[in-house]
Amino acid sequence: MAKELKELTPREENYSQWYNDLVVKADLAENSAVRGCMVIKPYGYAIWEKMQRILDDMFKETGHQNAYFPLFIPKSFLSREADHVEGFAKECAVVTHYRLKTNPDGTGVVVDPEAKLEEELIVRPTSETIIWNTYKNWIQSYRDLPILCNQWANVVRWEMRTRLFLRTAEFLWQEGHTAHATEAEALEEARRMLNVYADFAENFMAVPVVKGIKSANERFAGAVETFCIEAMMQDGKALQAGTSHFLGQNFAKAFDVQFVNKENKLDYVWATSWGVSTRLMGALIMAHADNNGLVLPPKLAPFQVVIVPIYKNQEQLDAINDKVNTLTSQFKNLGISFKYDNADNKKPGWKFSEYELKGVPVRIAIGARDLENGTVEVMRRDTLQKETMSFDGIAEHIKSLLDDIQANIFKKALDYRASVTREVNSYEEFKVEIEKGGFISAHWDGTPETEEKIKEETKATIRCIPLEGDKTPGKCMVTGRPSACRVLFARAY
Amino acid sequence: MAKELKELTPREENYSQWYNDLVVKADLAENSAVRGCMVIKPYGYAIWEKMQRILDDMFKETGHQNAYFPLFIPKSFLSREADHVEGFAKECAVVTHYRLKTNPDGTGVVVDPEAKLEEELIVRPTSETIIWNTYKNWIQSYRDLPILCNQWANVVRWEMRTRLFLRTAEFLWQEGHTAHATEAEALEEARRMLNVYADFAENFMAVPVVKGIKSANERFAGAVETFCIEAMMQDGKALQAGTSHFLGQNFAKAFDVQFVNKENKLDYVWATSWGVSTRLMGALIMAHADNNGLVLPPKLAPFQVVIVPIYKNQEQLDAINDKVNTLTSQFKNLGISFKYDNADNKKPGWKFSEYELKGVPVRIAIGARDLENGTVEVMRRDTLQKETMSFDGIAEHIKSLLDDIQANIFKKALDYRASVTREVNSYEEFKVEIEKGGFISAHWDGTPETEEKIKEETKATIRCIPLEGDKTPGKCMVTGRPSACRVLFARAY
Repeated sequence: MAKELKELTPREENYSQWYNDLVVKADLAENSAVRGCMVIKPYGYAIWEKMQRILDDMFKETGHQNAYFPLFIPKSFLSREADHVEGFAKECAVVTHYRLKTNPDGTGVVVDPEAKLEEELIVRPTSETIIWNTYKNWIQSYRDLPILCNQWANVVRWEMRTRLFLRTAEFLWQEGHTAHATEAEALEEARRMLNVYADFAENFMAVPVVKGIKSANERFAGAVETFCIEAMMQDGKALQAGTSHFLGQNFAKAFDVQFVNKENKLDYVWATSWGVSTRLMGALIMAHADNNGLVLPPKLAPFQVVIVPIYKNQEQLDAINDKVNTLTSQFKNLGISFKYDNADNKKPGWKFSEYELKGVPVRIAIGARDLENGTVEVMRRDTLQKETMSFDGIAEHIKSLLDDIQANIFKKALDYRASVTREVNSYEEFKVEIEKGGFISAHWDGTPETEEKIKEETKATIRCIPLEGDKTPGKCMVTGRPSACRVLFARAY
Repeated sequence: MAKELKELTPREENYSQWYNDLVVKADLAENSAVRGCMVIKPYGYAIWEKMQRILDDMFKETGHQNAYFPLFIPKSFLSREADHVEGFAKECAVVTHYRLKTNPDGTGVVVDPEAKLEEELIVRPTSETIIWNTYKNWIQSYRDLPILCNQWANVVRWEMRTRLFLRTAEFLWQEGHTAHATEAEALEEARRMLNVYADFAENFMAVPVVKGIKSANERFAGAVETFCIEAMMQDGKALQAGTSHFLGQNFAKAFDVQFVNKENKLDYVWATSWGVSTRLMGALIMAHADNNGLVLPPKLAPFQVVIVPIYKNQEQLDAINDKVNTLTSQFKNLGISFKYDNADNKKPGWKFSEYELKGVPVRIAIGARDLENGTVEVMRRDTLQKETMSFDGIAEHIKSLLDDIQANIFKKALDYRASVTREVNSYEEFKVEIEKGGFISAHWDGTPETEEKIKEETKATIRCIPLEGDKTPGKCMVTGRPSACRVLFARAY
């Protein structure tokens, strides 16, 4: 019965329901009493913590420091940068009062009308404005530059339609905000962080990504150029996994942040910002999971190996416990994380399903016969293949198996992406192909009007103008006008 | 000149100004454009990150997991627990709207009156209510218990008078929230976490603390019992450094969280919550710093050693660089963190002041003569003592010096506390002694009325009823009524 409760809606039947089932049943997250805000449960948060730790190390290796800026932004700050306010004022949580009082009728509390703020505060949807207002006081001369700050924080965007991890009113993220003396340095920084994100996505999440530039329509509100990494999910929809913005001097001008440059002249400071969020959890799930549940890359799994004993009596369990102690001390030496689940109120079959659902990369089962034969049963989650192996040398074997799983799920995702990426040369063909999902590489005349028309007629957006690959010019599939190179279209999350 | 900018107001002259100068000039934090909200600058945040990492490891070692709950709390949740609403409704940020729109006159943005929330949302001042509303769905049986969750988060309490780190409208903290099947288990948990906090304060922050129980007046709103650690600052005022609450079944009853216990009967769940915040930064500063600046315990310093070269020409610098390379590779092997500051746009004297201000535990200076003599000059920040030492074996020496500094600043703080802690037996004497600061141990009759009278007349509060030490009964210094044991009074932050 417990098992049935954990069963997922099959992907083929209802992809969206499969995703929601999985997030909730694998104990990753759930909806809260507050519309659009999620609760990230311990197992889900443990994965996010692994992501944070790895990214944080990468940021520090590239010279960044963490800092913390206020949750609230004065309303007037949002309006300082013209494009920014257009992009972010629409959907934000507004604090108007700072006190409650007991309801005169004695039931509960009401907002105290006496405690109205002079200027409303916005719960940060992103922090460029409050940070550039702060940087103004930190920067006088080129010697104060660069400033390379990152913050780990929560942000709020009042989304009307929300989905766990993918689009929530409150989400967790990191936002880097850097200040530079020259345009070239800022552009280099924006590209550096794009590469950090791509490295993280591919080598830790095992999710292949396309690095590219956003079209003007899809650009961050206030950016001169938005770089992005785009991933392909198993339902053929694209997901923007991270963005890195070259902000030019827009925010420096909006907040009057000038500095004396090496030539002793006043100039506005150059800026970047870049972020990834708990949305990555959604990408991780949708890139690898199957109808049995999550499939976690070993580098991000809260524990890489689960060990399940199979026994009929205490004597057998004692013998297995001894064997497992030997094994786990070897795991510790090799840096392999594990969980030994010898809880006696659940049956092995229940545990097997549970850990498949939770995507634990490797499962080891040890029974009485294994003790006799000096063997264990090893199952790898990515292929669900089981193998009986000699106990001798098993820890080293698991170590290389984990590497193999990490590589295999990346390759699987890469092969899938290749299978759903194709070139298309006419708009007629495009309309047919887009229904099948995947990335479509096609020529576009570079105008927002054409992009808008395609979006309206097909729900496809330009995911990016890829930085690498074929740069042959051609003709726009819609208007026939000249196109500088192919761009990547998809329907997207 | 640069040095003058960094000079602090002397402590003796104006303690409060000294503190503020120090926080700002040592680059720990600064006030932001948003009333009561601070910006934590990279150097300050690096200390906080060290605190977080150490505490997080301690929480995990004691079986806790991290999770994340929503920033917002529906207004009605606050009223569910009667004491809780009294304590927290007074000072909170209230979100009433979810959209801005362009001002009809074209200038900036205004709150869209159409986008009013049906029920206002409170920015969490603490998360018991939203968490217990969530736990309701996680707990059916004793087999689901205990739940041992912690979250690292920002919270907001609309304080009227704010001071950097000590009392800010928004602050960062961790809040543990646990659920248990029995009263005994919950009480054990509350005490366990109090011990974790005391261990952290004393062995990492080098701040001695008194473990105790709060009087009813000072108890957390909604708790049955509040345990606390109390520290003594160098101006003779006490600072509450951490609290651990035994919540009884109060929140379980407020949110109707029942479970089937081992006897197969329905019962309400038992709860604890416990937290420390960026306020610890204030304690760290005020416990150890002096008129030259911060004094950081080596275990929390962002870097433990700074190396400053003293040279007249590039040739000398090259030779020093070589020497330093040898040294820093030894530091790496020994796990000593360091910064080599060979920036050539600042003079050694300026660097010396700067790193004293920032409290770096050990400074090493290397000049041309040191190269000839095979020596370095070592200064320890806690005593400001300088010593010329042989280069051979210097890394090992620094390692033990760091241990010595850690122990010494703890001892210094402990000696100071002892010197300002005394027993008082009459209210007359109390009124004289309290003016001198420090902890006063005196008898109290246990009533809120007497406590309130003392507070009104002397501004002193009962910091705690100490868990350890003399438990001899006596007579209340104010009323002469029986007192179970001495309690600790002080004026406090």
